[in-house]
Amino acid sequence: MSLDVAATKPHERLAAALSDDLSAVNEMIRTRMASEHAPRIPEVTAHLVEAGGKRLRPMLTLAAARMCGYDGPYHVHLAATVEFIHTATLLHDDVVDESNQRRGRPTANLLWDNTSSVLVGDYLFARSFQLMVETGSMRVLDILANASATIAEGEVLQLTAAADLATTEDIYFKVVRGKTAALFSAAMEVGGVIADQDEATVKALFDYGDTLGIAFQIVDDLLDYGGTSAIGKNVGDDFRERKLTLPVIRAIAAADATEREFWTRTIGKGRQEDGDLEHAVALLAKHGAMDTTRQTALDYIVEAKAALAVLPDSDIREMLLDLADYVVARIT
Amino acid sequence: MSLDVAATKPHERLAAALSDDLSAVNEMIRTRMASEHAPRIPEVTAHLVEAGGKRLRPMLTLAAARMCGYDGPYHVHLAATVEFIHTATLLHDDVVDESNQRRGRPTANLLWDNTSSVLVGDYLFARSFQLMVETGSMRVLDILANASATIAEGEVLQLTAAADLATTEDIYFKVVRGKTAALFSAAMEVGGVIADQDEATVKALFDYGDTLGIAFQIVDDLLDYGGTSAIGKNVGDDFRERKLTLPVIRAIAAADATEREFWTRTIGKGRQEDGDLEHAVALLAKHGAMDTTRQTALDYIVEAKAALAVLPDSDIREMLLDLADYVVARIT
Repeated sequence: MSLDVAATKPHERLAAALSDDLSAVNEMIRTRMASEHAPRIPEVTAHLVEAGGKRLRPMLTLAAARMCGYDGPYHVHLAATVEFIHTATLLHDDVVDESNQRRGRPTANLLWDNTSSVLVGDYLFARSFQLMVETGSMRVLDILANASATIAEGEVLQLTAAADLATTEDIYFKVVRGKTAALFSAAMEVGGVIADQDEATVKALFDYGDTLGIAFQIVDDLLDYGGTSAIGKNVGDDFRERKLTLPVIRAIAAADATEREFWTRTIGKGRQEDGDLEHAVALLAKHGAMDTTRQTALDYIVEAKAALAVLPDSDIREMLLDLADYVVARIT
Repeated sequence: MSLDVAATKPHERLAAALSDDLSAVNEMIRTRMASEHAPRIPEVTAHLVEAGGKRLRPMLTLAAARMCGYDGPYHVHLAATVEFIHTATLLHDDVVDESNQRRGRPTANLLWDNTSSVLVGDYLFARSFQLMVETGSMRVLDILANASATIAEGEVLQLTAAADLATTEDIYFKVVRGKTAALFSAAMEVGGVIADQDEATVKALFDYGDTLGIAFQIVDDLLDYGGTSAIGKNVGDDFRERKLTLPVIRAIAAADATEREFWTRTIGKGRQEDGDLEHAVALLAKHGAMDTTRQTALDYIVEAKAALAVLPDSDIREMLLDLADYVVARIT
């Protein structure tokens, strides 16, 4: 893919439009990651924070603030806050998942160990907390405190829901809010709050982040059962980890007795054999679970774009609308 | 020991004097620990939060607020906050230490697993964050954000300093501030801030908590090399875990070549044999490391008590003075 084509991706256009702000965020991340007292901390975080992640979440904060005409300094603090929270969550997930790869590099717990992942994650949470306090906005703190609780609850709920065939769509959406949507929505919302917007606008920003985040996660879950371009993600991970994702929940709801036995054995009891993944994919197709799940993601994207209707027209708003389409482009 | 004698312990007199407040704190802890979305969370935390810990840290907050004449509701929020932070730290320490016992009960990671310890710890941090926000005091948030960073840095520093014979007393005190003193001092300080005290009083409260916390940890470290009443703590844990505590740092500083080889083998390289602990204890005695460390703890207690001199005389102030003496009573 040529650089010109690459430059047409909406998150890259956003990065270009926000490049000064993003540089300031990167500089703040570098500065605040450093610890005078525990100099090894940046070694643990650098490979994660500087691994060339897309900076999607901080960009949402910057975009929301700029779209609302904000010209103060604190959108940079908040964007760095959001990235620190995201990175801390990844570090703690590494312990949880015992995953071996994160963004194509060895995870912190292989480079170092579980202990470093836990403690350095805590350090980044604490740093993010200090950054928020510097904004002086109690409402921002309230939003991010609530988002933190939703994230932690979602992670615990995902853990208890794993391998549980009784998992409902309602539980799935709570897990998804915790895993993805809560930080997306908070990232957008604080951008509007710091820019002192009215309630309708703040709610619109929240709604865009919330629905975009849900769609983002649904797409991820779809790709895990055979999307066409799941770069860097192995098809079948969720099946092996016995996660009750939306297509599986829907296929189980439609299962006959034999199929139910299959799901009970593979997901419920984790006794998986060669060919099971292929059979699971076939069952998802048979009951239209892939199609209806794809449609659900598309519906959320319609909502996401509609939410931005209350914002005045601007280049950034156009890019956020394009970003919403781009999130589901992988499954359409 | 009869109940009457037990009731003369200063922390029990404090608990009696603050019993209404403590009941409110316990009720708030129960309520806020609950998660509608992830109902298993209280199962994980209950055995820690309700294991009959002394509630020392929340009592410091309540005592500071009451000593300053506070009559609003938020000292309860802050006391619960401080206990949640403490409990979250314990949960994350469980992952780190792979310890099997905590307050005499199985640790959360044996009852459940490392994953639950990490995620439920995160949940308690998030809950504590929500509680602080409810106080509406930005200064309180600033204090607790900074304390959180000090705690996390101290934990990482402890990890990197373990088994490192080059660890200085300066590093030791940074570790101790992170492990213990930062939360003690923050617990006292927020009690004064919420009661709207002048700077001199707030600083005095901070200083009391800081010096009490340092002395508390030094005593703990001394007992690990053979204090007389180390109930529930196994003598020699720190030696086996190759921790550079104050008596060891001082004995190493005074070591001759042969002794240095001993420390290098046992602490530096972790090659420990039968009789090594006894030899270590003998070396600590030989160089007076136990005595000078004991004196250091006593000096901090003198400072702690002096700090409270600016506070008006009151029953609670007397109990805090007694509590300071009680902390070092185990080593005198």
